[in-house]
Amino acid sequence: MAEINRQIVLDQLPQGKLAPDHFRLVEGPLAAPGDGEVLLRARYISLDAANRAWMQGATYRSALNAGQVMAGGALAEVIESKADHLKPGDLVFADMGWQDFAVLPAKGLSPQPRLEPLTHLLSVYGVAGLTAYFGLLKCGRPRQGETVAVSAAAGSVGLLVGQIARIKGCRVVGIAGGAAKGALLMKDYGFDAVVDYKAGDTRRALRAACPDGIDVYFDNVGGDIFEAALFNMRNHGRIACCGAVSSYDGAAPAHGPRGVPGLIVTRRLTVTGFVVMDFYDEKDAALAELKGWVDSGQLKVAEDVIDGLEHLPSALIGLLAGENIGKRMVKVA
Amino acid sequence: MAEINRQIVLDQLPQGKLAPDHFRLVEGPLAAPGDGEVLLRARYISLDAANRAWMQGATYRSALNAGQVMAGGALAEVIESKADHLKPGDLVFADMGWQDFAVLPAKGLSPQPRLEPLTHLLSVYGVAGLTAYFGLLKCGRPRQGETVAVSAAAGSVGLLVGQIARIKGCRVVGIAGGAAKGALLMKDYGFDAVVDYKAGDTRRALRAACPDGIDVYFDNVGGDIFEAALFNMRNHGRIACCGAVSSYDGAAPAHGPRGVPGLIVTRRLTVTGFVVMDFYDEKDAALAELKGWVDSGQLKVAEDVIDGLEHLPSALIGLLAGENIGKRMVKVA
Repeated sequence: MAEINRQIVLDQLPQGKLAPDHFRLVEGPLAAPGDGEVLLRARYISLDAANRAWMQGATYRSALNAGQVMAGGALAEVIESKADHLKPGDLVFADMGWQDFAVLPAKGLSPQPRLEPLTHLLSVYGVAGLTAYFGLLKCGRPRQGETVAVSAAAGSVGLLVGQIARIKGCRVVGIAGGAAKGALLMKDYGFDAVVDYKAGDTRRALRAACPDGIDVYFDNVGGDIFEAALFNMRNHGRIACCGAVSSYDGAAPAHGPRGVPGLIVTRRLTVTGFVVMDFYDEKDAALAELKGWVDSGQLKVAEDVIDGLEHLPSALIGLLAGENIGKRMVKVA
Repeated sequence: MAEINRQIVLDQLPQGKLAPDHFRLVEGPLAAPGDGEVLLRARYISLDAANRAWMQGATYRSALNAGQVMAGGALAEVIESKADHLKPGDLVFADMGWQDFAVLPAKGLSPQPRLEPLTHLLSVYGVAGLTAYFGLLKCGRPRQGETVAVSAAAGSVGLLVGQIARIKGCRVVGIAGGAAKGALLMKDYGFDAVVDYKAGDTRRALRAACPDGIDVYFDNVGGDIFEAALFNMRNHGRIACCGAVSSYDGAAPAHGPRGVPGLIVTRRLTVTGFVVMDFYDEKDAALAELKGWVDSGQLKVAEDVIDGLEHLPSALIGLLAGENIGKRMVKVA
């Protein structure tokens, strides 16, 4: 096999905003799998705000270091296998990083169904879909008729959270940047109202959009938007904490949101952080329900597929700036 | 009846720290109860950090205003009754404010058992005991062998939280101000370790006291101590938010604790605010369990009883400064 393996290395850890020159493209030969290993080729590499958080230190995974191939989850195809349970042509999810090929231990990799389109395996049937599903339903616990607000509402997770909340009979308010995104969320994705956080006083705008307050807030961003939602929560409300994008791309914030813990007490709120893997024992049932909604047309899947491994750095930087609608990924092969 | 009713009026709302001259003692005649009303005489008036929070605006009760009799819960005796279910000599809990006598609607008042000592009705069998019990067990959900940390550990609630956690088989770390308090907590109340927040870097001291991290943090204070505990939480830890004393006595804090919501996500924490009344449908069972622990000597009750209605302002100011050990109250009659 004479193919070349392109790798995108995290050349230096960003101190402030992530920029293209933090990355470097290198080329090298392919490795061959040993016993119990597989050679994988990336088909689609997922882009997630969490990629940036990994550069800040250990989270639910170990920290990234300068000089390493940039980490990232991929939908990959088995090219060569020295493991019994995988054969060439099988599709697997693997944390293979930003490269064309990788040799990985086969243990923990399992063949995925060849759905059409394949990209759905990284969006609605992947981490984004399960994050929206479990975070909203397990941590947010919305009841019919309640008001659900979600930040980063046009992002891969937020767009699904809003639609699932609608399916569950809730009034849905999205928080997103820019009037165009807001119009799209209401026109195409069934949001009842949208707050443009770039337009100024988010707390006041949320109050106008949620005159009776928020029962469930699904937080993807932290920071000022978290604070704005917190001040609009109803008694016994629930906040599902999925991420803190606002604090990923730059220095650590000097302070946290006001109202913590005072409003949590007086309004009897429950604030729950989660990582989707914690719910994977219920994954099959979740995927079945998501598939039912997609097949019936109740759940629309938005994907933003960029072609070419070399575009991974700019795709991530753009994602952190909120330029995508729905699930962003890069097609590698 | 020729008695005089002394009343302590909240003369002005404090902008910063509460001071004696925010209050004024006035005297007036007694009112007579109308149909469905009772005339009550205060026996013991409870002092609680929440008294100060009521001056900041509406919480779970309406805000206090300047010129009103200062609000406060009391164990009171029925002097005259125009209601069928209450007779002279009955003891009731009533939000009768800081005064000798009050006429109140009898509806919602129910006779309390004449326990010995009566003061226990305001401590372990009152709001403090139930707050510790429900907050720890329902929101903190400690499991045997876990590490439980509690702030304001020498206060009315904290002292009970620590002991209940010990009864449940947990390792208990108190956070309290001053070396003397800490020594007392360990010697007399079974705390395994104590952190003195007045001695400097609380986050580091907590790390030393909880080398494996904190599973359950019972927060009475908010602010910097909340932040210090948050950074020491273990994965899947729980924080029970009971109050935010640190922000009651002064201007509203400019910022909240760092790590919100970032650490809540990565460590999968659950942060739950509660108000004890929300659990009152399970009150009888809770009181029975508390009584069992008191009777068996497993739970020690600390009370700090100050004599004389006129001392209510200084008693509250001192409580906000942390001068009490256990439940502070004022004996009125």
